[in-house]
Amino acid sequence: MATDLGVARDAAPEHTVAPDPAALQRILDGKYAEVRDLVRRNLVEHADLLGEVDDLDRETYRDRVLAIVQQVAATGQTGFGFPEEHGGGGDIGASIAAFETLAFGDLSVLVKVGVQFGLFGGAVLQLGTQRHHAAYLPGIIDGTILGSFAMTESGHGSNVQALATTATYDVATDEFVVETPHDAARKDYIGNAARHGELAVVFAQLHIGGESQGVHAFIVPIRVRDDAGELVPAPGVRIEDCGHKMGLQGVDNGRLWFDGVRIPRENLLDRFATVSPAGVYSSEIESPGRRFFTTIGTLVQGRVSVGGAGINAAKVAMVLAVRYAERRRQFEATGEQEELLLDYGQHQRRLLPLLAQTYALHVAQEDLAAELHAVFSGEKTDGRSRRALESHAAGLKAVGTWHATRTIQECREACGGAGYLSASRFAALKADTDVFTTFEGDNHVLLQLVAKGLLTDYAGDFQDADQFEMVKLVAGIALDEIVKRTRAHQLLDRVRDLLPTGAEGEDEAGLLDTDYQLAMLRYREEQVISSAARRLKRGVDSGMNPGAVFSQVQPHVIAAARAHMDRVVQEAFVARVAGLEDGPEKRALGLLVDLNALRMIEADRAWFMESGRMSAARSKAVRREVDALCRRVRPIARQLVDAFGVPEEVLRAPDLLGPVVTAGDPPAVGHEPGHHTQGETAERVAESA
Amino acid sequence: MATDLGVARDAAPEHTVAPDPAALQRILDGKYAEVRDLVRRNLVEHADLLGEVDDLDRETYRDRVLAIVQQVAATGQTGFGFPEEHGGGGDIGASIAAFETLAFGDLSVLVKVGVQFGLFGGAVLQLGTQRHHAAYLPGIIDGTILGSFAMTESGHGSNVQALATTATYDVATDEFVVETPHDAARKDYIGNAARHGELAVVFAQLHIGGESQGVHAFIVPIRVRDDAGELVPAPGVRIEDCGHKMGLQGVDNGRLWFDGVRIPRENLLDRFATVSPAGVYSSEIESPGRRFFTTIGTLVQGRVSVGGAGINAAKVAMVLAVRYAERRRQFEATGEQEELLLDYGQHQRRLLPLLAQTYALHVAQEDLAAELHAVFSGEKTDGRSRRALESHAAGLKAVGTWHATRTIQECREACGGAGYLSASRFAALKADTDVFTTFEGDNHVLLQLVAKGLLTDYAGDFQDADQFEMVKLVAGIALDEIVKRTRAHQLLDRVRDLLPTGAEGEDEAGLLDTDYQLAMLRYREEQVISSAARRLKRGVDSGMNPGAVFSQVQPHVIAAARAHMDRVVQEAFVARVAGLEDGPEKRALGLLVDLNALRMIEADRAWFMESGRMSAARSKAVRREVDALCRRVRPIARQLVDAFGVPEEVLRAPDLLGPVVTAGDPPAVGHEPGHHTQGETAERVAESA
Repeated sequence: MATDLGVARDAAPEHTVAPDPAALQRILDGKYAEVRDLVRRNLVEHADLLGEVDDLDRETYRDRVLAIVQQVAATGQTGFGFPEEHGGGGDIGASIAAFETLAFGDLSVLVKVGVQFGLFGGAVLQLGTQRHHAAYLPGIIDGTILGSFAMTESGHGSNVQALATTATYDVATDEFVVETPHDAARKDYIGNAARHGELAVVFAQLHIGGESQGVHAFIVPIRVRDDAGELVPAPGVRIEDCGHKMGLQGVDNGRLWFDGVRIPRENLLDRFATVSPAGVYSSEIESPGRRFFTTIGTLVQGRVSVGGAGINAAKVAMVLAVRYAERRRQFEATGEQEELLLDYGQHQRRLLPLLAQTYALHVAQEDLAAELHAVFSGEKTDGRSRRALESHAAGLKAVGTWHATRTIQECREACGGAGYLSASRFAALKADTDVFTTFEGDNHVLLQLVAKGLLTDYAGDFQDADQFEMVKLVAGIALDEIVKRTRAHQLLDRVRDLLPTGAEGEDEAGLLDTDYQLAMLRYREEQVISSAARRLKRGVDSGMNPGAVFSQVQPHVIAAARAHMDRVVQEAFVARVAGLEDGPEKRALGLLVDLNALRMIEADRAWFMESGRMSAARSKAVRREVDALCRRVRPIARQLVDAFGVPEEVLRAPDLLGPVVTAGDPPAVGHEPGHHTQGETAERVAESA
Repeated sequence: MATDLGVARDAAPEHTVAPDPAALQRILDGKYAEVRDLVRRNLVEHADLLGEVDDLDRETYRDRVLAIVQQVAATGQTGFGFPEEHGGGGDIGASIAAFETLAFGDLSVLVKVGVQFGLFGGAVLQLGTQRHHAAYLPGIIDGTILGSFAMTESGHGSNVQALATTATYDVATDEFVVETPHDAARKDYIGNAARHGELAVVFAQLHIGGESQGVHAFIVPIRVRDDAGELVPAPGVRIEDCGHKMGLQGVDNGRLWFDGVRIPRENLLDRFATVSPAGVYSSEIESPGRRFFTTIGTLVQGRVSVGGAGINAAKVAMVLAVRYAERRRQFEATGEQEELLLDYGQHQRRLLPLLAQTYALHVAQEDLAAELHAVFSGEKTDGRSRRALESHAAGLKAVGTWHATRTIQECREACGGAGYLSASRFAALKADTDVFTTFEGDNHVLLQLVAKGLLTDYAGDFQDADQFEMVKLVAGIALDEIVKRTRAHQLLDRVRDLLPTGAEGEDEAGLLDTDYQLAMLRYREEQVISSAARRLKRGVDSGMNPGAVFSQVQPHVIAAARAHMDRVVQEAFVARVAGLEDGPEKRALGLLVDLNALRMIEADRAWFMESGRMSAARSKAVRREVDALCRRVRPIARQLVDAFGVPEEVLRAPDLLGPVVTAGDPPAVGHEPGHHTQGETAERVAESA
């Protein structure tokens, strides 16, 4: 897995040859370049929406979004993930590529697409059987059957195994009766519910003959047409609008209450369990818990989609901030003109590590989408592949959406007042993406799932976030077992530089060695996982309440998941770049590989020092090297953001990219390199703080 | 300055006696409790606005805000900062207390108040003379003369010395002619400009007889009443609406262009410079630069206000998140009920250090307001006090507003989907406060000013952010001079624990010693400042371009300012708590003092290790201690947020605070302590990651 990148790493900054943005874009777009271009064309066609939304009332905005969703559905953009026999594209990888590219545009459109085709359509596809597919998928794919995914309740968003809505089988009528037992069991935040949805996939506790079989999914009509042809709530269904939200006003989120709503027995989505007319329940999966988590596990595509959307929304922010920083001048510099923002060291430090991270996450997301494709197209059928997929999806969803929140914020601040105007897109980006860290799984809960998988070698069900389960499982495993299971340990002998070097001059040695960087990330991963396991075991062994043990060790557990994801992402990035042909693009990406690795090591350098794996001098050298890498990336920052291929039409931001930039100065054109590249002298002031 | 708090610090968690929220609130409200209560009453009276704004169109919202501003003006709430002879309250400290308390409510109202009374009114008060005061202040104070503060231009927000608008004296007519020479010189983001303002204080380059005298302030009528009595743009004034913004829709930000607008000579705000009818310019301040920066320096109240507003907006978020976390349950715990969010270690780690920081910043803000009061009421008249004030104001504005951004984000995420609904207030808090980091000085530029003051002992003008000036000044100062000037060094001998201890058992020793905590913060401040100075000097000495030197060292320079502010804030907090009588409130605040100190030391523990001031074992002990402090603060978290005195009516957030919390469980009442307090065993699992 570990491999050097195969490019000259000691090239002086002035030897950096600018990469060709188009060639870089081909690398990023990869296998699904045509799919992405289709989405780009559709985004451009509907780009006007971006400028209109602030002045649309909510219902008009929602209807505009629906119209656009239906129009792009007609181009095939939203149907890639469905089987060809029902009108889909039969290519799950393509559906992810299409979805994440859609994040360049209005995010209400993105989320509406996610609700209709990903959540609702995905549930029918994954949890239903042939008769559901035949009845619903064609209409779902062409956007004529609109539906909701009604899982979350006000009382339960993360712990969905404890949902309180019930579906009780009535053998007399061959029907299920769906019921909201109390107000905390109302379905909440449900997309497509407040205005457009006709059907909902409702998750409810299945009760038969007084016995509960756990949570199952049912198709429930929530709206019917009245005599005038208007959609009205179905009998027994109460619908409330969630009202104004922080963002995503174009999505009609609502609440649902069911009061004795009767649905035919066939409306149980019965891929994993059936109920006979006589009321006999049967399932190939014996354990109710496993059955539930298998059900949930099939919906992993939603997490892959949201993570990808976060990463791509971050790209839009990066494009705006880098292009602004390349044009905007402020305060006197050497010559007559004021200094470009991007020539300030602090500005480089703020933006360029985030740019490297965006690239790394993009590549990791590509790998994840390929993994999803392999599992869901049946190329890989083993349980281990599936659990690895679920883990990577959970982890990358958390990491990618937090990256979006942080990047959009930093880029907005870097664009000053102009970034605060809605015309700049930051307003919408920030407000719309905010909930990405919450929906499709709260990020902390997701990282906890990842950690549990690592700690227990996926002994339990991946999706089960029950912390007692985790504590008990870990307590029952021998420590060296846990250590052995982390893939990290296998390559530990490649950490060349485990001990502080004595000689001052050698502090920098090997910092730009990809193997060293990966070895450091692997070492940390292994150590944090095994020390978390030790603490959990020790707590249980000492007789402490497992809940108290878990509570105390929880931040450590989550740190383990983060360390794991850091390593997974960087390995993906390294592998991708190593496989490229040498040239300016590979060299440019090589800089980003270094910057992303050292950015992570720098951020956790306290841990490396605490663990005796890095000397103080070495730690300072890491900081200097990050500084130096920022300076080396700066001259090619423009090409790096151009390569994202965000259509000019969706950038808007006239005050950021337009003519009003400096007082009378002609706007800076192109990518003039900064003047701060004085090799040797640079070294001399670059002493760490 | 340094002093121990005088409370028993080794009390076991179970001995924590809950403080009385009312008593704590009295401590926080301090001298201006009555002023704050007046504002609270006004907030409650207008609390309906919070629920209405999402459905108001922009112009209606703006008019509602104006009406409220005028109504609260009638209560005296907004006039405290003006002289009594013109109808004000004659108490600058009271005006800060009133303004920052206003941040509990709708922030468009806050910013509109800031524009009208702080920026516009403040400029007339500080830069004008008696005739301006007599003519304008009574109408400004009662809200009948509405005005704008027109400084920022599209091309210049941070470097305002380079503004391009001109005011040319025409001796023939005894008038100034105000001109916008090009589009980048339009005034931009100007509050009160798009709809309500009749006057503007316009900052422009004063030209007389072909000579430029630098930037001065002028009163320019921007609107006049037409024959029908409607306000229309004054002749020669073009006004454009900035349109939709990320937040603060209730503030009418606009752009202004001036095309040969003539104003009487008397409209020059002439406190620092006059122009005679014959066109002779005179000023008591000879240097044009110093004149300009003196002018700007008088406007420091704006920064004090915004920083305080950020800190108080953060309180609202903290109240919501802590109260939600005390009611919301998720996932199984020991007993039958699910676990309260606030009993999760990760949740404590997310919220409670921010709570400690909020308290510390509140106290530092109180000190700053007192400093402002002392300088502007004439109690302190020396230049050094004024520069210290300007430095503290700049630093606390940056730190306080970043704290708001971060806290609101963390608290929103901690409230899940319910936090995303506009009903929860997070939407408005997040969108409205976002620009706080930018206006009244970009935070990074402000920290640069702070650092420059520290590095040069305020040798230049405090407000001058010119980096060349800084580099040159620093290059000319002997290093030990710089070191001597930082107050930090004076107490270095109190660092007891400069070297790593050998014995394992002693890693924790003294961590809860206030003197030790302060000594660590002081040591870091001194070292970061002096090493930044060394790097700047070395760069210049080596013949590097000063711009390049500055660019490279800039992140280090900004880190110096941060280290300085950390120390200033903690010293203020310590001093305040030390002065309290012993009791549950002092003990509770003592926990926050420890948590805030160790939070900062933990965050920068890599630096302390790099500098040889902390061993790896000690560093791990710091982390354990922060964990332990979070557990100790947890049982009193509710009282600590109740003490902020945020009126229930402005909290809204029915889904966060209301009845819908858990599936069928009765909502948790009061402040049941977590069950994770098993003293000894806790120690055993609390090994660091």
